[in-house]
Amino acid sequence: MATRLGDDERRQALEHLTGWAMVEGREAIQRRYVFRDFSEAFGFMTRVALAAERMDHHPEWSNVYKTVDVTLTTHEAGGLTELDVKLAQTMDRLAGK
Amino acid sequence: MATRLGDDERRQALEHLTGWAMVEGREAIQRRYVFRDFSEAFGFMTRVALAAERMDHHPEWSNVYKTVDVTLTTHEAGGLTELDVKLAQTMDRLAGK
Repeated sequence: MATRLGDDERRQALEHLTGWAMVEGREAIQRRYVFRDFSEAFGFMTRVALAAERMDHHPEWSNVYKTVDVTLTTHEAGGLTELDVKLAQTMDRLAGK
Repeated sequence: MATRLGDDERRQALEHLTGWAMVEGREAIQRRYVFRDFSEAFGFMTRVALAAERMDHHPEWSNVYKTVDVTLTTHEAGGLTELDVKLAQTMDRLAGK
């Protein structure tokens, strides 16, 4: 099982994740992606879904037309783990950001 | 453009949409779908996405693992229209509910 990142590890990871921020009052990170339209937004979500399923680690996310809001945390670990960092990096790569 | 449903039409439509309810403080309807796992939930979302794109009418929705929360309204009309009723029916059909 993935283990929770320590304070230093978490700070270091966040420094390398441009556009991501800690969620207020919760050990989780969040980011908004804005695309050109629904097709582009849902295309991104589909690629992320495949990656998430392969990792067996899934985002909390919402979509309104061309906007996708993502929150990542590792429920079993009660906070952020390496899995969240990896999934965030994968999402950034798939979004072309 | 789709026109906003009148009070009677809205009431009648809701009576036929089992599991859907009005959103508090907003002219919109909401429903939660719970599936077996992420794969089943996202499979549902993918089929809905194709239908929504064809209708050019899109849901507001969020997904956490096997749960999909949906809100439907027609932004251009400032409330509920026939498009929302049709999309709700399509979603129910695709979810097999």
